[in-house]
Parts: sequence; structure tokens; C-alpha cells
Amino acid sequence: MARIKPYISRTPILTSSTIDRMTGGNLFFKCENFQKAGAFKSRGATNAVFQLNESELSQGVATHSSGNHAAALALAAKRRGIKAHIVMPDNSSKVKIQAVENYGGIITFCAPRLQSREGTLKEVLAITGAHEVHPYNDLRIIAGQATVAMEIIEDHPDINLIITPVGGGGLLSGTALAAKYFGNRVKVIGAEPERANDAYQSFHSGTFVPSTNPDTIADGLRTSLGSLTFPIILENVDDIVTVSEEGIINAMRLIWERMKLIVEPSSAVPLAAILEGKINVKGIKTAIILSGGNVDLDNLPF
Amino acid sequence: MARIKPYISRTPILTSSTIDRMTGGNLFFKCENFQKAGAFKSRGATNAVFQLNESELSQGVATHSSGNHAAALALAAKRRGIKAHIVMPDNSSKVKIQAVENYGGIITFCAPRLQSREGTLKEVLAITGAHEVHPYNDLRIIAGQATVAMEIIEDHPDINLIITPVGGGGLLSGTALAAKYFGNRVKVIGAEPERANDAYQSFHSGTFVPSTNPDTIADGLRTSLGSLTFPIILENVDDIVTVSEEGIINAMRLIWERMKLIVEPSSAVPLAAILEGKINVKGIKTAIILSGGNVDLDNLPF
Repeated sequence: MARIKPYISRTPILTSSTIDRMTGGNLFFKCENFQKAGAFKSRGATNAVFQLNESELSQGVATHSSGNHAAALALAAKRRGIKAHIVMPDNSSKVKIQAVENYGGIITFCAPRLQSREGTLKEVLAITGAHEVHPYNDLRIIAGQATVAMEIIEDHPDINLIITPVGGGGLLSGTALAAKYFGNRVKVIGAEPERANDAYQSFHSGTFVPSTNPDTIADGLRTSLGSLTFPIILENVDDIVTVSEEGIINAMRLIWERMKLIVEPSSAVPLAAILEGKINVKGIKTAIILSGGNVDLDNLPF
Repeated sequence: MARIKPYISRTPILTSSTIDRMTGGNLFFKCENFQKAGAFKSRGATNAVFQLNESELSQGVATHSSGNHAAALALAAKRRGIKAHIVMPDNSSKVKIQAVENYGGIITFCAPRLQSREGTLKEVLAITGAHEVHPYNDLRIIAGQATVAMEIIEDHPDINLIITPVGGGGLLSGTALAAKYFGNRVKVIGAEPERANDAYQSFHSGTFVPSTNPDTIADGLRTSLGSLTFPIILENVDDIVTVSEEGIINAMRLIWERMKLIVEPSSAVPLAAILEGKINVKGIKTAIILSGGNVDLDNLPF
């Protein structure tokens, strides 16, 4: 997408003969861990910030996020020369706080509960007059995240399946739309931690189920689906599967050791689903979106 | 080089706008950490093994190595369907021993001293009749390692400088020869740990100085130059510089955090040299060879 091209990286797609042997698949790993600010979130945030009009721009942008969207929005705002007000839970990791600060984001801390995050954001919006950019429940964000799959399809027009992690559903819904409009019968599957299986439940019941007490190491996947992302997913995604915590850590370590790539736990969820036998990739070409690489090296799960 | 092409990876070259800003340079990182068996050593080992004649092949190959050459030779031998006898010091890291075993290498352990390594290898050669493939003091190895720089020059014909780590000098001498024969006035600099500065001393005095008690975290760079590599380096390399242990660890962590790449300490030595002001990269295009990515995740220096 022309709007965001100057500001994001065209990330490489890497392969691993070892992991192909282990899974019987033909896997293509799209390295969004190499993306600006270390995650695909830069695509959506940039797409949102660079289509604001002058009046929307004037008081800056705001969001609540404990993680990659916070840094991505701060960076996109910096590039556009406007302020970014970020509401962050006070238990956010040091690394993520530092990233937001490095990009000049203005942080307001709150208690680590959704209610507190939303309440604090409302206050910040009221005081600053900033324009809200939600992490995923926003069509500008979904369209930005769709560019990951557009690049995959451009590089590998014969891809059969794309697997993404699913949290709030911005990446998954964007991927499903890109597969529908640009792909040649490309299937799309979302992979989710068992311990935060709200998207799994919502998808298979057809009724929205919120994420309650998500207790997973995949810190990017603890949120609920949104009112925009859920219907897109319900209509356009082929399946949602879940994986164990142990499976996530094992897959993450495998990617580190065999591919020499630093990925965060959320990125390992699709490979975990294959290794746990939840998705059959034998005989087809499968793309996996490695969603991000922001981990605290002083606090690894292995 | 056509002989090794089917067996090695054409590794990508990545960049980092953050590290460019920090150094004032325009840096191109050649990712040999993604190479087969996790290091550039696969190039030389494959080149050596795939030019053996039938009589040389018959009893397999042998070497002494505590690290990446061991795994690379075992893998190349496996590909050619022959045996690989590897003499390894009994203090070699578990990860490196496992890698050799995974590729079917036959390990003989010895005491962790050069004398013991050479003595044990002589015994193994006498008993097995295997063909010796030295880790670096072998023109077939040097030619194989030269393909890293050949690919850099092919991808970026306007590169001005290539920096490599230097241990035994196989990569550095191969790089210097590739720059000379294929490059357009490309300078080549070797970077070495202060605590294993035998190549630095040898280069600047013009007389061979062996490596004695090298005490550096860069485990790939503890060896002495060879009788073949030293003269090539002396004639064709522009400079050799040294870096501190702290500088190596800082540069390694920077590559992990900012580039999301897993590299071993040896790979970080060239960037450390730039960050410590030993090499000026301002205003020129510089390639850095990230030589390998084999680290023990349970035993990180940070």
C-alpha cells in the first residue's frame, strides 16, 4: 500500500529445512520481527496516522496498549511530527516502556485492568483532545495489517495457507481480507493460546466471547476480539485452533535455535499449532507470520 | 561457486536504521548465522568435501575443532555419504557436541589443548585412514569462505569496505581474495578480540605470532593464523583492529535487540570495532559478516 511504503520495511520471508523436515511442510516465515519498532503493528499504526487530516492531527493521537501498538503508534506519530499519548498498564515490561519513550511517546500509567485502561484513556482524550487510534478495532489498522499478507502473496502467489496468531484480531482479519481479495484460494487459520481462547470460542460458537483472565506467556494475544474484527474473522477465516503454553515455549525456542531469529512468544503460536498437530501442513505451501520480536532478554522463558 | 551452491544457503543481507544512526554508517549485515549448520564454515567444509576424489573419500574425513567447523564438516560429509571423524576438546559446549552428533559425526574427545588436539587427530588419521580437512589452513577452505564476500559484492557492487572477524584467518583471507579479484577497490579489515590479538600482532609486526592463552568470549576466534592464511592476510588485508570483551558483549546484545538476530559473540566483533571507534564507517558503504549464530541459550553473557 503506497501510503505506508516509505515508513515500513518490506520484510524478508525465510525458510528452514530442519523445521520443514520436522513438520512435513513447506513453511515460509514472514519476518515481521524485523519490522519497524519490532512488530507488524507499525503497518496499521502508520496507515492510521498518515491518513489523518489537519484537524485530526492537531492535538496528536492517543491509545491504550501495553505493548507493540504503543511503540508503533509513538513511532508513526514521531514520523508525522505529532504527539502520541499512550496509556500503559503500570505492570508493562521495562523494554516496552523504554521503546515508547525512545520514540517520544507521552506515557500515562494506569492499573493493569481493561476498565482502568479505558477510563484513563477517556480522561487523556478529554484533556488533550487527541485522536484515538485503537490497537485493532479500526478499519485503518486492519487495512494496514493486511499488507503483511499482500506481500506474502506477491512474493509467493502459489501459497496455499497463511497462519497468524490471534489476539484482538487486527492481523487475522486483515490477513483474511488480503487472502480473499488478492490471493488465489488462500486459506487462513488463526492460532491462539488455550489460556486465552476467546477467539476460538467466539469463532466456533458464532457469538462474541470476551477474553477473561488470559494467563498466557503470549503477551500480545491476551485481548478480546473487536466489534469490527470479529465479523470479518467469522466470515473470512477458515479455522481457529489453540495451543498449550508448553507448545508456545518449545516452538519459540525452536525458532531461536534453528532459524537464529528472535521472536516473541506470540510469534511462535502458529508453529506451535503445527507441531501440536492442530494444523496439517503436509504437501502444501504454508506461510507463517512471525508477528514480532520484542522480548526482554533479561527475562526469557528458557 | 557452482560446486557448493546446491548445499549452502544464499544468505540475506539485512540493514538497521537504528545502528546506522548510532554509527553514522551505511551498514550491510551478511547473515551467515542463517547458513547451514549456523555458520559460514559450511561453505569451506562443503567446498573441501565435494572436491575429494574417490580414493580420498573412501575412508571419510577428519578434523579437530571445538566448534562450527566440526558441525559443518560433519554435515558436508553426511551430504556426500561419507564418515566424518571429529576430535573435540572435552570442554566443548553441549550445543556444539550435539550438533556434530546430529549430523552423524563420529566424535573422539581429547584434552582442551592444541597439542592434545593435534596428537589425538594424528592417532585418528592413522587408525582410520581418513582425509584431513583443516578448519582454515587449507586452500579449499579459504576458497569456500571467499564465497561470502563474492555474494556481498554481487548484491552490492558499490560496497566500499568489508569487515570480518579473524580467528584462524580462513574467512578473512578468503574475503580479501574475493575483494581483490571480484571487487571494485573494496577494502577489507579484520576485527579481533584484544584478549586473542595474535592476528593483530602478526599483521602489524609482519612476523607470525601464535595465539597463547586466548581468554575471550568470542569462542570462534581463539586460534592462531595458519601458514597459508597469514601471508594472504599480510598482502591483501588493509588493517586488523582489536576490541574489548565488554565491546563484544554490548555489540552482540545490540544486534539481538535491534536486529532481532541471534548471533554468536564472534559475529559481534566487527560491529564492536565500529562502536569503539576503531574503524570509521562514516560516508561509506560497509559490509559486516555475521559469521555465525551458534550460541547456548542456557548460557548467555547477558
